[in-house]
Amino acid sequence: MMLVRMNMKTVLGALCVAVLLFTLFWGHCGDFSRRPLGSVLSEHGHGADDIECIINGEYSVSCRRDRERDDVYVPFSLVHKYFEIYGKITTTDGVEKFEWSHSYGKIYHPKKKYDPRGTFTTFENYNVEVRDRVKCISGIEGVPISTQWDPKGFFYPTQIAQFGLAHYSKFLTEAEPRRRIIDDGEKHIENWIVSKDAFMVREYDSESQTNILRFSTSDHVSSQVWLKVNISQDFVLSADVMMKPNSSMTVVLQNKEKKETVYLHYVASTQLIYAQDDHIYYGIGVEQKWRKITRDLIIDMQKGWILQDRPKRRSPRNKFKISSVILSGTGGLDNVTVSSSEHMAQFYAAASWLVRAQRGRGGWPVPARRRVAAGVADLAPGWYSAMSQGHAISVLARAYSRSGDVTYLQAARRALYVLDVPSHAGGVKALWMDKFVWYEEYPTKPPLFVLNGFIYTLLGLYDLHVIEGENSMSLAKKMFDDGMTSLKTLLPLFDTGSGSFYDLRHFTLGVSPNIARWDYHATHVNQLYLLAGLDDDPILLNTAKRWEGYMQGKRAAHN
Amino acid sequence: MMLVRMNMKTVLGALCVAVLLFTLFWGHCGDFSRRPLGSVLSEHGHGADDIECIINGEYSVSCRRDRERDDVYVPFSLVHKYFEIYGKITTTDGVEKFEWSHSYGKIYHPKKKYDPRGTFTTFENYNVEVRDRVKCISGIEGVPISTQWDPKGFFYPTQIAQFGLAHYSKFLTEAEPRRRIIDDGEKHIENWIVSKDAFMVREYDSESQTNILRFSTSDHVSSQVWLKVNISQDFVLSADVMMKPNSSMTVVLQNKEKKETVYLHYVASTQLIYAQDDHIYYGIGVEQKWRKITRDLIIDMQKGWILQDRPKRRSPRNKFKISSVILSGTGGLDNVTVSSSEHMAQFYAAASWLVRAQRGRGGWPVPARRRVAAGVADLAPGWYSAMSQGHAISVLARAYSRSGDVTYLQAARRALYVLDVPSHAGGVKALWMDKFVWYEEYPTKPPLFVLNGFIYTLLGLYDLHVIEGENSMSLAKKMFDDGMTSLKTLLPLFDTGSGSFYDLRHFTLGVSPNIARWDYHATHVNQLYLLAGLDDDPILLNTAKRWEGYMQGKRAAHN
Repeated sequence: MMLVRMNMKTVLGALCVAVLLFTLFWGHCGDFSRRPLGSVLSEHGHGADDIECIINGEYSVSCRRDRERDDVYVPFSLVHKYFEIYGKITTTDGVEKFEWSHSYGKIYHPKKKYDPRGTFTTFENYNVEVRDRVKCISGIEGVPISTQWDPKGFFYPTQIAQFGLAHYSKFLTEAEPRRRIIDDGEKHIENWIVSKDAFMVREYDSESQTNILRFSTSDHVSSQVWLKVNISQDFVLSADVMMKPNSSMTVVLQNKEKKETVYLHYVASTQLIYAQDDHIYYGIGVEQKWRKITRDLIIDMQKGWILQDRPKRRSPRNKFKISSVILSGTGGLDNVTVSSSEHMAQFYAAASWLVRAQRGRGGWPVPARRRVAAGVADLAPGWYSAMSQGHAISVLARAYSRSGDVTYLQAARRALYVLDVPSHAGGVKALWMDKFVWYEEYPTKPPLFVLNGFIYTLLGLYDLHVIEGENSMSLAKKMFDDGMTSLKTLLPLFDTGSGSFYDLRHFTLGVSPNIARWDYHATHVNQLYLLAGLDDDPILLNTAKRWEGYMQGKRAAHN
Repeated sequence: MMLVRMNMKTVLGALCVAVLLFTLFWGHCGDFSRRPLGSVLSEHGHGADDIECIINGEYSVSCRRDRERDDVYVPFSLVHKYFEIYGKITTTDGVEKFEWSHSYGKIYHPKKKYDPRGTFTTFENYNVEVRDRVKCISGIEGVPISTQWDPKGFFYPTQIAQFGLAHYSKFLTEAEPRRRIIDDGEKHIENWIVSKDAFMVREYDSESQTNILRFSTSDHVSSQVWLKVNISQDFVLSADVMMKPNSSMTVVLQNKEKKETVYLHYVASTQLIYAQDDHIYYGIGVEQKWRKITRDLIIDMQKGWILQDRPKRRSPRNKFKISSVILSGTGGLDNVTVSSSEHMAQFYAAASWLVRAQRGRGGWPVPARRRVAAGVADLAPGWYSAMSQGHAISVLARAYSRSGDVTYLQAARRALYVLDVPSHAGGVKALWMDKFVWYEEYPTKPPLFVLNGFIYTLLGLYDLHVIEGENSMSLAKKMFDDGMTSLKTLLPLFDTGSGSFYDLRHFTLGVSPNIARWDYHATHVNQLYLLAGLDDDPILLNTAKRWEGYMQGKRAAHN
């Protein structure tokens, strides 16, 4: 109705009078941005009275009334708690300022149209493996192990795909890595120190058809083959290895500042990770064949510390150096290299895992129980996620386009199947009001309509469609188009007028809305800017712009 | 997706560190509510430095850093402008305090179940006729004339029904009015002064079957019949009148404080209102038959002032008195009464108008063009409003239950028809996603789904159903039930997490959401509390409570 306006005006009138009086009396209400700073009193100190501020009639805060400046000053601690505004003192050229931030989260305005062969959204800024919920990088698979919903750890397809996509994107955006060959089996390098009851030879290996290092040590603890090195700055170690069970390659890291030595043992075992004091063990498998391992030593060290509940440290990359490599047991070694990064090896580790782990229906089941929301049945281990499927397609499409290996393309195509199976039948597809398809990140009953996971799924569909040939009328293209219709239709329902909803659980469960915290909101905005480059429906760009404004405190108008 | 958490944590981490430092350094972040007020320095004045606050990197405000208190103080003028928080200084027992108000608007918690024979929602607090968009009260119809969408003025059924419902509700909640009979035609009262060329008689009137006053004056300007009175405090005048065209009854008001006289002329003419200087004219029609007029003299005076663009005045009821009544022309008069209120007369004026103005299809067309929203075709004059229909039913149901006159009941039943005609066919019914019925306050194409007007329509349906007999399976009951299903389904879509949407235009037009300002939000909350008494689905009460919390600054959680 439009008719209570007068009544409201009566109420508002009283308030307006108050505000007006306030404005007139204290002068610069609504005028603060144009006030020359420090123009009233530049000397240290002002006359100001304490005044009790009654907040909504509920509690009191001590404020200050400045009669000289004709304003009441409220403590920022109140603003922070009441509105979740962030503030901090910064110092520039010796001058302290107070920075008021409405939100955190960064918006990336795309410089060019999204390309399924290029970086994946803004993932070059992601570092999956440092996340707390990554237990460690598997020594056998080279992909992260998640503890997000199960402290034992499990392979979470979404996380693994993000790991791959982040490294792929970093590969495309970062400078060429520094690489230093420690030993490629070809040159005789004298530095290896072989204890009396051990041996090391350099010999031609018929399987790998190249010269390699072969080593063997006795059971005696002092029996070792080791190499002293002194490498700072770069910490990604890669090597071709073939070792008998329980044999190991140990990389020793030393803190340059204080007496601290960390031993990273890469052991021919099936154990995921084990750590005691300064010794951290990663199983790299027991298969008797040559394989390449690629390890970020700093990540491996930090995950060992976390396993022992030791505090995370700041910038360990600056404080440590690689001081030696120790071989123990029996095995072969080749192409030992230290690099500043090996993003493509890590990307392909993810892509290969996805090919190996894919099930018959084309899905990657999540082996952990997931409690999504109160009032909704848990997702039992083995559930599928549209986001996993979409992210996996994005990895596989890139792996195919880069390598030409059709295995990746076939796996990507198979991944579509689960997306078309309704959640109630074990798939991930929901329908909004029996009409609009939604690929569910969490296929609950009733559906939740999580926004960001849906858009990531759409990107996977787009990637596959483009990789298959942009003019093809593929299944991926149809599913993408259907999803975009849903998105453009339902997008307004995610608008709070000052932010965005993470999902539509308030509609499907009838509960309090689930507001997206600022980083998810920023993800929404980044995703919409990306999609606005693929689809010229103005709702995408308009929504992206409006939602970006919300991050600086702008709000939708009220009537 | 759930996986950017770490990345966010990195960003948030930096901020958290800042906030944490801030908290540690300045001590009472998040602790302000428990801080004993004025405990730090109770003397006048504190040492405080100016510090420039940079707001979202966009503009600067001069704040104050208090090292003694370890906090930064920001001007309330900023908080007011940035967040639309209201603030004012109040004085209690000589102590000044600053009152911070998150919102305006009042919530009424119902004390008993809503009764269609009782007050209409919270309308006893409404005063329709004082609204700026009420041009005046028609002298012929006794109902308000709206200028809301047409400055010429028109009969707006919603406003007329609200006028009736407000007076009905006031009748039930206010004390019995004071009434003073000025002249009922029976007693010989000497006070009437009759000029030489005029006459006045007291005689039996066969039509009204009672004694009345008959008067006649000549064309000469000094020819008058007048009565000196001295009535303060009460200003509702009622009288039975029958006058020849251009004859008039003039009520003279005098300002008790200053020399100011206002002449309210009630003229046997068809002119709505005319005002010049201190003379204000209302046409009361030219039909030659007895009729009762009921006039709020103060309202009539104020509307005359507004017509001349004179400023509104505060509490004129305290400043004026009725000083005389003047008759001119030829006519009869009876039952001249001054009361503190005549709510039921005003209520029946509205009910009678609704019966007379109803069209064949049972609707009350709105004769003004209505521009509802950008991007939507205007509603051409003659449009119907579900809210008008619902409000009219609420008036008619009460008129029937009070009077027993089935004319009202028949009109109420006829009013259902328009509610069941789709907007595209000239009615007011919309369907959400082809499924859920919505009675549209503004039947635009596409629909807007205005919330408060829909709920008012539901109340009309409920009123009719109950008046017809609560156990009847009436059409009204079915339409109410269908509407309640829609409401309980779609209600969450109106939740912003910190307020409510006025409508769903963001969904149907793809535009920025239309947030309900606080008085509409309060209306939503009051309506939901009322409905929660009629329907025990917890979504009604839970939403009402959550939305009431938003008015004190509470917000839905973010993830």
